Amino acid sequence: MRAHSISMLGTGLISDFYTMTLHGKRGVDRVRTVYSRTAERGEAFQARWGIPDSTTDMQAAIEHPDTDVVVVALPNHLHEAAVKAVAKAGKSVLCTKPLGRDADEARRMLEAVETAGIFAGYLEDLCYTPKTLKAIKSVHDGAIGDVTWVRSRETHPGPHSAWFWDGRLTGGGPIIDLGCHCIEIIRNFTGKGNRPVEVMCHTDTLVHPIDDEDNAIALIRFESGAIGQFEVSWTFRGGMDLRDEVAGTHGTIWLNHFLRTGFEMFTAGGQGGYVAEKAETSAGWLFPVGDEVSELGYVDMFTDMFDAIDDGRAPQETFYDGYVVNAVMDACYRSAKRRAWEPVDLFEWRGGTTERIAAKPTYHDGQVVIKRELLPDGREKLILKDPATGDFTDRVIGPR
Amino acid sequence: MRAHSISMLGTGLISDFYTMTLHGKRGVDRVRTVYSRTAERGEAFQARWGIPDSTTDMQAAIEHPDTDVVVVALPNHLHEAAVKAVAKAGKSVLCTKPLGRDADEARRMLEAVETAGIFAGYLEDLCYTPKTLKAIKSVHDGAIGDVTWVRSRETHPGPHSAWFWDGRLTGGGPIIDLGCHCIEIIRNFTGKGNRPVEVMCHTDTLVHPIDDEDNAIALIRFESGAIGQFEVSWTFRGGMDLRDEVAGTHGTIWLNHFLRTGFEMFTAGGQGGYVAEKAETSAGWLFPVGDEVSELGYVDMFTDMFDAIDDGRAPQETFYDGYVVNAVMDACYRSAKRRAWEPVDLFEWRGGTTERIAAKPTYHDGQVVIKRELLPDGREKLILKDPATGDFTDRVIGPR
Amino acid sequence: MRAHSISMLGTGLISDFYTMTLHGKRGVDRVRTVYSRTAERGEAFQARWGIPDSTTDMQAAIEHPDTDVVVVALPNHLHEAAVKAVAKAGKSVLCTKPLGRDADEARRMLEAVETAGIFAGYLEDLCYTPKTLKAIKSVHDGAIGDVTWVRSRETHPGPHSAWFWDGRLTGGGPIIDLGCHCIEIIRNFTGKGNRPVEVMCHTDTLVHPIDDEDNAIALIRFESGAIGQFEVSWTFRGGMDLRDEVAGTHGTIWLNHFLRTGFEMFTAGGQGGYVAEKAETSAGWLFPVGDEVSELGYVDMFTDMFDAIDDGRAPQETFYDGYVVNAVMDACYRSAKRRAWEPVDLFEWRGGTTERIAAKPTYHDGQVVIKRELLPDGREKLILKDPATGDFTDRVIGPR
Amino acid sequence: MRAHSISMLGTGLISDFYTMTLHGKRGVDRVRTVYSRTAERGEAFQARWGIPDSTTDMQAAIEHPDTDVVVVALPNHLHEAAVKAVAKAGKSVLCTKPLGRDADEARRMLEAVETAGIFAGYLEDLCYTPKTLKAIKSVHDGAIGDVTWVRSRETHPGPHSAWFWDGRLTGGGPIIDLGCHCIEIIRNFTGKGNRPVEVMCHTDTLVHPIDDEDNAIALIRFESGAIGQFEVSWTFRGGMDLRDEVAGTHGTIWLNHFLRTGFEMFTAGGQGGYVAEKAETSAGWLFPVGDEVSELGYVDMFTDMFDAIDDGRAPQETFYDGYVVNAVMDACYRSAKRRAWEPVDLFEWRGGTTERIAAKPTYHDGQVVIKRELLPDGREKLILKDPATGDFTDRVIGPR
Repeated sequence: MRAHSISMLGTGLISDFYTMTLHGKRGVDRVRTVYSRTAERGEAFQARWGIPDSTTDMQAAIEHPDTDVVVVALPNHLHEAAVKAVAKAGKSVLCTKPLGRDADEARRMLEAVETAGIFAGYLEDLCYTPKTLKAIKSVHDGAIGDVTWVRSRETHPGPHSAWFWDGRLTGGGPIIDLGCHCIEIIRNFTGKGNRPVEVMCHTDTLVHPIDDEDNAIALIRFESGAIGQFEVSWTFRGGMDLRDEVAGTHGTIWLNHFLRTGFEMFTAGGQGGYVAEKAETSAGWLFPVGDEVSELGYVDMFTDMFDAIDDGRAPQETFYDGYVVNAVMDACYRSAKRRAWEPVDLFEWRGGTTERIAAKPTYHDGQVVIKRELLPDGREKLILKDPATGDFTDRVIGPR
Repeated sequence: MRAHSISMLGTGLISDFYTMTLHGKRGVDRVRTVYSRTAERGEAFQARWGIPDSTTDMQAAIEHPDTDVVVVALPNHLHEAAVKAVAKAGKSVLCTKPLGRDADEARRMLEAVETAGIFAGYLEDLCYTPKTLKAIKSVHDGAIGDVTWVRSRETHPGPHSAWFWDGRLTGGGPIIDLGCHCIEIIRNFTGKGNRPVEVMCHTDTLVHPIDDEDNAIALIRFESGAIGQFEVSWTFRGGMDLRDEVAGTHGTIWLNHFLRTGFEMFTAGGQGGYVAEKAETSAGWLFPVGDEVSELGYVDMFTDMFDAIDDGRAPQETFYDGYVVNAVMDACYRSAKRRAWEPVDLFEWRGGTTERIAAKPTYHDGQVVIKRELLPDGREKLILKDPATGDFTDRVIGPR
Repeated sequence: MRAHSISMLGTGLISDFYTMTLHGKRGVDRVRTVYSRTAERGEAFQARWGIPDSTTDMQAAIEHPDTDVVVVALPNHLHEAAVKAVAKAGKSVLCTKPLGRDADEARRMLEAVETAGIFAGYLEDLCYTPKTLKAIKSVHDGAIGDVTWVRSRETHPGPHSAWFWDGRLTGGGPIIDLGCHCIEIIRNFTGKGNRPVEVMCHTDTLVHPIDDEDNAIALIRFESGAIGQFEVSWTFRGGMDLRDEVAGTHGTIWLNHFLRTGFEMFTAGGQGGYVAEKAETSAGWLFPVGDEVSELGYVDMFTDMFDAIDDGRAPQETFYDGYVVNAVMDACYRSAKRRAWEPVDLFEWRGGTTERIAAKPTYHDGQVVIKRELLPDGREKLILKDPATGDFTDRVIGPR
Repeated sequence: MRAHSISMLGTGLISDFYTMTLHGKRGVDRVRTVYSRTAERGEAFQARWGIPDSTTDMQAAIEHPDTDVVVVALPNHLHEAAVKAVAKAGKSVLCTKPLGRDADEARRMLEAVETAGIFAGYLEDLCYTPKTLKAIKSVHDGAIGDVTWVRSRETHPGPHSAWFWDGRLTGGGPIIDLGCHCIEIIRNFTGKGNRPVEVMCHTDTLVHPIDDEDNAIALIRFESGAIGQFEVSWTFRGGMDLRDEVAGTHGTIWLNHFLRTGFEMFTAGGQGGYVAEKAETSAGWLFPVGDEVSELGYVDMFTDMFDAIDDGRAPQETFYDGYVVNAVMDACYRSAKRRAWEPVDLFEWRGGTTERIAAKPTYHDGQVVIKRELLPDGREKLILKDPATGDFTDRVIGPR
């Protein structure tokens, strides 16, 4: 394990979360310099986290002689320029989500880092929550059979920062802000080698007076036949709803990352303090999470990134993943506009092919077995289909 | 309150649930005769529930001199004939869900009862669960503002009876079996006067060797802009997943009707008994419900039906509602086939018009207010949009 | 089934719940007259529930010529006189909980009804919640083995009516108000034939300026060795916490009757309506129950009572049960005062004897088997004790 | 932040958890050598965690020239000798829980480290779970008012290792194994300066053929009047039940650390892998936790310990805390034997005094206000007590 020294680009909420993670606990890695457009914000950030330097010159931050890794935690429209500058500087780059405002932008970033041959990690924290990591492992180990459906939901009452609301800077509304998480969570469950083929998306702007969507629902069809479903909203009331559900041929997984995690508090009076990200009230029944940076995946994400650099391997979440996510989001926006299924356009598919989920029929006395049920008395009930007539019957048989 | 005497048509699982409800507790209404195609099943049912008569002649059951209400609890393909026979007999009719196999069939049933001028109730139990009734009331009282989105989910590992699997008899797969519940639950939350305009549906057959779908997801767009979303499956593992979620401009409702209702049991050994409808295991962690016929809505449903007869009013769930549900399901099947949004075709819309959900923008110093957040120190943070430039800024102001 | 006609004594909250239950749904039984000390309250109650008569003369209500059942829903200090008057009138009597203010009072009531030979039912609703009934049945069917421990908890911020706070009228604080429920719930799980032998109780008055306790915790040791544990409070914040936990040698049951039953609502603004009994807030996250009179046991309780009258059998909850509960509460108060274990004094034990929970030791190669664990590879790990030396070792053996 | 180099004494399950924590993520601290009684186990542990050295000589491990911290992760009966040897070596010592088998042993360890002047930390992981840390902070910030009651529950089907069952080596049954956690959790919520005055404990041996208890319940009365309640068991079925509940005069906290944390999985078939500590089944509904070493507190515990060493301050959990816990457990065993409240004997109380929880009565028109309730119409209902007569009345008044 090598200790890494980091140039942090940006001083917003996400930079705080990143630095809280890096400087929290007993980690070896440290932020060495921070870049902000304004000296005041940079110096406040520097003081807040005990960082040796700060600067208003992004290029200087990237080229800081003592750092080997640059974290891009800037608004979306600044990712491309920053990533290209890091590529030129030949350092490792970690870029926050979404990678680009659209797939073209993401592709150019991908090509920049691959041409430069630098390490590049896509900071998709919600694919690294401890629950998600363990659930993905269970799925890969076969605990729920073939995945047939994944629902990923992220909704809250809307972002805290002004720039998030400006689609010109971000690329869109909650699809861009939240959907990017959902899409990559879904891909981890359906399998990264399982090609996202096409997308059907519905968007609407129901509450906030903005041009972009404030609500969206999408279906993603994968090559295996599995369906990914995401629901994102900036109009949800009650806090931040962050849940995933996975259905498989042999099992089910339900993950709740935020409002129902085994921590419940009723308080009659204002406590005055921070409750949780996107919390709406400070009295009544509240549902904090224990350690947000751990439960939201930041700890395991940076562990994977720096371990990957040390080990000379790719991280779990790469720029190519970020590109695929952008391509799916592009298809979502096209679909919502055209109100039709839209193919996911990828300049290159690196994932191979995936067979269709297919339960081979079994037979009993020449009849197709539709379903088997174990009865309380130990016998088995079969629902059978006559292949000739198409008629269905049931039959109870002795212990299997 | 008048005591009603009932002719029960059918002796399957649903007839058992109905009669358990009617004869349970201290109710005044009683099943007087039961019809089954086979004498053996009819007599067993008669004995099981202490019913005076049974018959294999459906017409005789309908015309039984002592009954005033006929409950149609037959497989779907037999509803139309039965309802028409009751209409001819001039008795009140209560028909199980779905009303028809398609909207044409449902429309003919609707016309038959309206022409005959008889009381007709649509036995949509899940719109009558105590939780649903109270939640609908809260929504109508304005507790969550305007409804923007409703998710209704019903999934389990597949039906117990053979005929359910035969699309020729039922009209389809889980859309017909389970989606009919979801659609009407959604309508109750979005408002029955809120017209379902169009539908986008995806279906697939992933696990069972049948011709109909075993999984489906649909979006229903209502006139107000609200979206209804249903998910139905015959391949879910873990029991019966029966949940509704409602999002509004000022609140949220989550209902769980089956697997997580505050009753949790771990048992190391086989208990040998009935756990719950569609339960998959009899050991390990189990999640029974307290009183299934009450929690699944049967008690309140029959209460509404018989009270409505006594009061000379329409019940909450009418044949017209059943017809609308069939029309939405027809649109789902067309949409799944054409892979496109499909209009919901209704021969007649009885619900009036509904205004679009629309938050009128408010202004602060000539800027559009996008969002207000209360800060811990009592001040307020505004996200503002300049109507001229489209630029977003934030500003913190004193206590409101 | 015979229709019963009821004299309701009392017009408080509990009379409302009772009459809502009796007149709700499609029940045959009806309240015929109501007694209140003041004409105004009696007439309001009469109008509220459509009752033919009301009176301020308790004796007249009891002797009403058309009623066969009298429900005693009066403050505790009036139970004895009312029950004795009903016994004299020779009608069936149903008395709300607790039966008496102490065991002596309860015993006199028990003797009055037994001498008169009338039907007498103890209205202990929380032993009749659908969850509790099903859980009790599972326990009796052996689903969790021998019961070792039952926790019953009922806490809320304090009663709504003034007289509840006056120990002279009630007999005490939350032990009398809430503990009576818990004790009888515990008895149903440990077995009614399982004698409550002794009690250890701690009480304190921490928040309210009253002479009686506002918090209490008690342990009840049963003949089998099982422990019942109850926690009652009038200082709990957050609503009404109503939970039971049952541990057995082969399983576990957790029941949540109120705050977490699968109904969750967030509302930003005041809805203005009734949320739930003892709810503390009308905004933020709320946790209503579906149908309170059903989920709190009233429906099944009256069903059992009237069915028992019709069938000429004892109800599940008898006056003797009410007497035992009072005797346990008396022991609790003595224990809290003396700060020591106190025997439960019963003038007569009608329950027989119960054997001690006792797992007979099994042996492996002459060693006592302490525990068996199934390993992932299918082998079994044994924790063994050498009976000679008392030394412990572990050993892994092949598949059982 | 200094990097620490550690001598690990012991190679059991707890050493694995400790080393998984220390070597996990990107931490600077490393285990340098490990001691085991048998070379085979030591070498396996060394290989498993990539540790440079292993030894069967405890003294050599303690005196290893490159280490500055010694972690005592040995069976309870070996703690005292190990701690004294570290004290003699003048290194920092971190000792697993419980500190001693009884208070005398714990006191001698406390005196040894204080005499030697070394840093000593008590490895009480469950006081460091992220949920617990945040909840303790909320309590200290006043979110729930004065703490009146804390319930801490830890139960499972019994330990995996043979030595745990031998009371001669451990000091007792689940009180020693699990109660030590509960007591210190309770102290953190009631306040470490709040003296535990006396204890009432009930123990029994219901299932396992051992001499020590396999079930225990205890009440701890603190100087403020607050009650701590713990429930421990080696006979619980269903996994590991790890919950805390805190009641305060103005709020409530419920923590669930293990079986219900927002991760729910149903699997039809054996997955073959590790599910969770103390899991009982590998099929059906399972409830894993995300990252056990984080959620069980190990990460934050070691962070606090090493940060405390670096900062020259005491850790949250000290040897004095461990001593107090042992003193409470001693009182529990005495109480269970004598069946009476027993004082907690402490050779020295370092916590100062705590005032009794006491709501000063308020008055309205010369009457004591017992309770205030806000009515739906905005008015307020007062329950009042006449100080002269002791009579209770209620009165509705205008908006406060």
